[in-house]
Amino acid sequence: MTTNTINPTESKKITIIGLGAMGTSFVKAFIKSHHNVTIWNRTASKAAPLVSMGASQANTLQDALLTGNTIIISVSTYDDVYDILDPVKKYLNGKTLINLSSGTYNQAEDMSQWAETENIAYIDGAAMSGVRRVGQPDSLFLYSGNQKAFTMTKELLLSLGKAEFLGNDPGLTSLYDTALFGMAWGSLAGFYHAVALTSKKQIDAQKFASVASGHLPFLGSLMKDHAVHIDNKNYPNDDGSIDVHTAAMEHLVRSSHDHGISLDFPGFIKSLLDSGVSAGFGNDGIARVAEIMNKSKIETLK
Amino acid sequence: MTTNTINPTESKKITIIGLGAMGTSFVKAFIKSHHNVTIWNRTASKAAPLVSMGASQANTLQDALLTGNTIIISVSTYDDVYDILDPVKKYLNGKTLINLSSGTYNQAEDMSQWAETENIAYIDGAAMSGVRRVGQPDSLFLYSGNQKAFTMTKELLLSLGKAEFLGNDPGLTSLYDTALFGMAWGSLAGFYHAVALTSKKQIDAQKFASVASGHLPFLGSLMKDHAVHIDNKNYPNDDGSIDVHTAAMEHLVRSSHDHGISLDFPGFIKSLLDSGVSAGFGNDGIARVAEIMNKSKIETLK
Repeated sequence: MTTNTINPTESKKITIIGLGAMGTSFVKAFIKSHHNVTIWNRTASKAAPLVSMGASQANTLQDALLTGNTIIISVSTYDDVYDILDPVKKYLNGKTLINLSSGTYNQAEDMSQWAETENIAYIDGAAMSGVRRVGQPDSLFLYSGNQKAFTMTKELLLSLGKAEFLGNDPGLTSLYDTALFGMAWGSLAGFYHAVALTSKKQIDAQKFASVASGHLPFLGSLMKDHAVHIDNKNYPNDDGSIDVHTAAMEHLVRSSHDHGISLDFPGFIKSLLDSGVSAGFGNDGIARVAEIMNKSKIETLK
Repeated sequence: MTTNTINPTESKKITIIGLGAMGTSFVKAFIKSHHNVTIWNRTASKAAPLVSMGASQANTLQDALLTGNTIIISVSTYDDVYDILDPVKKYLNGKTLINLSSGTYNQAEDMSQWAETENIAYIDGAAMSGVRRVGQPDSLFLYSGNQKAFTMTKELLLSLGKAEFLGNDPGLTSLYDTALFGMAWGSLAGFYHAVALTSKKQIDAQKFASVASGHLPFLGSLMKDHAVHIDNKNYPNDDGSIDVHTAAMEHLVRSSHDHGISLDFPGFIKSLLDSGVSAGFGNDGIARVAEIMNKSKIETLK
């Protein structure tokens, strides 16, 4: 058996290191899509239920690495990755390592360097849709790093969900992960406030959520349009000017007040809009707010 | 010609009152879907380009109302609706009036009362996706009020976009409109901040937007799941506890600081999470934030 070259057939030999909630969900998704999976975990007992589902448990970490050609590791931190793999790195030579542990931009860059010196094709990855949705087609996974290795393993990775390759820079995954986490919280904070408001007329949250989720495709197309404005540094007000949105947000502040719910959320958005008006951009399109956030003066952490 | 009864065939005779940007887009969408449209506007000259596209211009408002069985009005305010229609209300007897002007919950309730005393089937509506997207299938329209009239005109209304009926209470459209406007701004504020952050590694906004819009279906399913938590007043932490999200948001605050962009957005979200921790809900799922917003003490408008 050739273990130190990557080819499309060989890349299908998957080894998964780390059987926490996330790693376990990966194993299940691969088994469900009829792949052979070799597993290894520091606490070996975690493997038993997965073996009964069809996974192969390696006796040693060395065996696990020798068996697979695509090695997926999912542990808590990048330090854990080094603790586990650095002593056995010679067995990774010529293989693809996909790291789905959580870390920062710089940690991903450093690990990519470490991998390169060992002739390991490194891909940094992030699961964006939580543990429960792993294996569903709308579950989003981000990857960056060795593009050739990604291309050869992509079909495999589709077993986990959507596989979005961001570029050769391995740190990009961590950057997108952080940015999308913030974006998700904007949506959720707006949703939670909307639920609080509509509940005052006895609308249950599930009813509102079904309408709200139907509104998201529109928001996606708005983001794409506004991205053009931002890239061009030109802000047409077809979707309403900052002045118009400020007036509408004032209405939401008043409605929130009249219904006795928190003013924090609409008050914060209004303060964003107010800063646009103060800066003289009242007649610009609302995407100008992104530029205001970007050009903000350096602030001091509290 | 019978003008004072509603039936599915007759309901297809559409009259549109008000030819601002929104009303004009309605006329175009109906013509595109091969409907006969009668139009009337206080400034008659606005009709000319639409007549050349196939719309019929009524000589008088009375003629416009007599010709159509489904009357759609799109003017600036509810006061404008009364100014135009109250003097000629007898010609609306037995017909369906769909009001797509902007107003409040109470204004919709009052207008519904006014319509009821005149034997007019009243539907309050709102265009949620802006003028440019009218006529596209993912353009969202909300309606509430007379359900029988909605059922009979629904096929017609699908020419404008998705037609979501919210219930018999005519004020619901305005309430959802306001609530969804707030939710949209949460998503946009989060998106703008994310764009500012990723731009620091030379990622253009359009590239980020394509990944971000692919993340929205997941956020929609998260909203639906969290709505169940909120309705049940039970907050499992499968998608991470408030404590875990607080730590991750602290990371976004630091990343924003390190990249020299505004801390306003992540700082605000962190303050929401902090209030959950302070209230003793750190181990609860994040949907608990909706309850905190709802149970907020009455605040004073600044």
